[in-house]
Amino acid sequence: MLSSLEFYQEEFEKHLMQKSILKEPKNLYEPIQYILNIGGKRLRPLLTLMSCEAFGKSYKSAMDAALAVEMFHNFSLIHDDIMDAAPLRRGHMTVHEKWDTNVGILSGDLMLISAYQHFENYEPQIFQKLAKLFSQTAVKVCEGQQFDVDYEVSEDVTIAQYLKMIEYKTAVLLGAALEMGAIIANAPAACSKNLYAFGKYLGIAFQLQDDFLDAFGDPQTFGKQVGGDIIANKKTFLYLYAIDKLPEIHAKELQHLFSIYPEKPESKIEVVKQMYEQSGAVEAIQEEIDRFTHKAFEHLEAVKISAENKLVFKTLGEQLMVRSV
Amino acid sequence: MLSSLEFYQEEFEKHLMQKSILKEPKNLYEPIQYILNIGGKRLRPLLTLMSCEAFGKSYKSAMDAALAVEMFHNFSLIHDDIMDAAPLRRGHMTVHEKWDTNVGILSGDLMLISAYQHFENYEPQIFQKLAKLFSQTAVKVCEGQQFDVDYEVSEDVTIAQYLKMIEYKTAVLLGAALEMGAIIANAPAACSKNLYAFGKYLGIAFQLQDDFLDAFGDPQTFGKQVGGDIIANKKTFLYLYAIDKLPEIHAKELQHLFSIYPEKPESKIEVVKQMYEQSGAVEAIQEEIDRFTHKAFEHLEAVKISAENKLVFKTLGEQLMVRSV
Repeated sequence: MLSSLEFYQEEFEKHLMQKSILKEPKNLYEPIQYILNIGGKRLRPLLTLMSCEAFGKSYKSAMDAALAVEMFHNFSLIHDDIMDAAPLRRGHMTVHEKWDTNVGILSGDLMLISAYQHFENYEPQIFQKLAKLFSQTAVKVCEGQQFDVDYEVSEDVTIAQYLKMIEYKTAVLLGAALEMGAIIANAPAACSKNLYAFGKYLGIAFQLQDDFLDAFGDPQTFGKQVGGDIIANKKTFLYLYAIDKLPEIHAKELQHLFSIYPEKPESKIEVVKQMYEQSGAVEAIQEEIDRFTHKAFEHLEAVKISAENKLVFKTLGEQLMVRSV
Repeated sequence: MLSSLEFYQEEFEKHLMQKSILKEPKNLYEPIQYILNIGGKRLRPLLTLMSCEAFGKSYKSAMDAALAVEMFHNFSLIHDDIMDAAPLRRGHMTVHEKWDTNVGILSGDLMLISAYQHFENYEPQIFQKLAKLFSQTAVKVCEGQQFDVDYEVSEDVTIAQYLKMIEYKTAVLLGAALEMGAIIANAPAACSKNLYAFGKYLGIAFQLQDDFLDAFGDPQTFGKQVGGDIIANKKTFLYLYAIDKLPEIHAKELQHLFSIYPEKPESKIEVVKQMYEQSGAVEAIQEEIDRFTHKAFEHLEAVKISAENKLVFKTLGEQLMVRSV
């Protein structure tokens, strides 16, 4: 039977501390320690540990793979933050702000390589399976990031393209984190694929939920600035849907609003939110969130693990969707 | 018996063309095609192919590993060029100039990942050995690049530190390229390690030769601007040796010269070259080049391959040192 989420999180933190290295050149290794230590929910490594244990093998066997996943996730944060010129990450200075862009590029590169190195202790067959899944996932994450960058300046992004972008950029890594645990536990391929799909669809639902909460969430609990996507003219699902469904005159107005950066954005936010509601985008995104969540749980249902363990994953999924994890 | 260098080069070009992919997002895949197609000597993949064949296995088995090595090399060029703010590479615009920095970061990341993917067709044991050697080498290349960046602003770099920097940044990849061919051909570990050492020491000798030619080479044949390192105040072996050996007053003058960027650099170049000669740096670098070349050939001697094949490697090494390859 699976332990509590907190147990796995604590065990992972211990492992991370043990494996932490600070060697020369310092400008390469310090940023890695820094980004790993400014928090984060450790959701992805948690999934790897839980998945391995759910198939009857100790979570300890999955520690190195969990570390690889967390390394990769943080590599992508460092490089994405450079590309987005983001000053803050988890409330702290981003690596390229604290050091500089060159340090961010190179320490990110090293984290990507070291992710592969964390698989090296697995025996050759498992190593190859993990590295293949990892590379395939990493390619998608890069493609997703590039789609995201491209879509920022494109005027004709479809909803299908947007969904593919968030699948690649965010969701596949959750799927891969789960599948890795299953691979280490030698789970049947069908099971590990279903677990992958569970993570992937949950990831899409989670990102859509994030889009929704960014506009309509409770400022007390959302954690980020409500309206942030609207201020930044970020073309999320809500925007793309509204542009598609609104009468042309309103669509043009929305387009205009997404080309300006008013000093006081409150009224822009209000108007955009009204348009999201009137166009049916709010209902549509809720339907999509439900659809992907449902799909995720269907795949979880098909995984051959005990009902008790399934419930732990289901609860985790539900907690994620109501943002209590 | 090994074929001609040209044969392997041509075969590699064909393989590269076959494996070339241009998919969406274009801003991610076009830069990869671009950097791979603006030339380069293909020295590293050549070494992998030749090494495999020298141990009696067809070079064809080593094609994918050769591709991985070339991918990695070009990944490091893209990211290094961003860090150095270099406008040109092999006479063409660098990726970050032709596109932008973000495209350079992300397409570089993708090349690094795809390097690992090129190992995937090898059976698990070989795959693991190749990926381990590759990661270990890639870490050193990143460390070498960071040392290089750090040393640019440091006033007390030792010759030993400089040699370690060029070993990591340049030489280990030549060693690894050779060792990979040996691994694929199932050569005994002692042999593949000697071949690695051959490549590594040859790489150090080659880089020192490059430092020397940059100041004292023939402008007709050197290929780069003679005096370029002096103009850029690059602290190569020659500089570090001269600073160490010159009387303090001259050392201070040299330090001063390496803090300015005169519009017409000719006289600065002349003075610095005289100081390199007077300090004994020119003799010292020649001795080091000879010492490392000799070490390289000693390790080659210890590799258990036919005398004929050994001669091919020796000739290649000699050609590299006189810059005819």
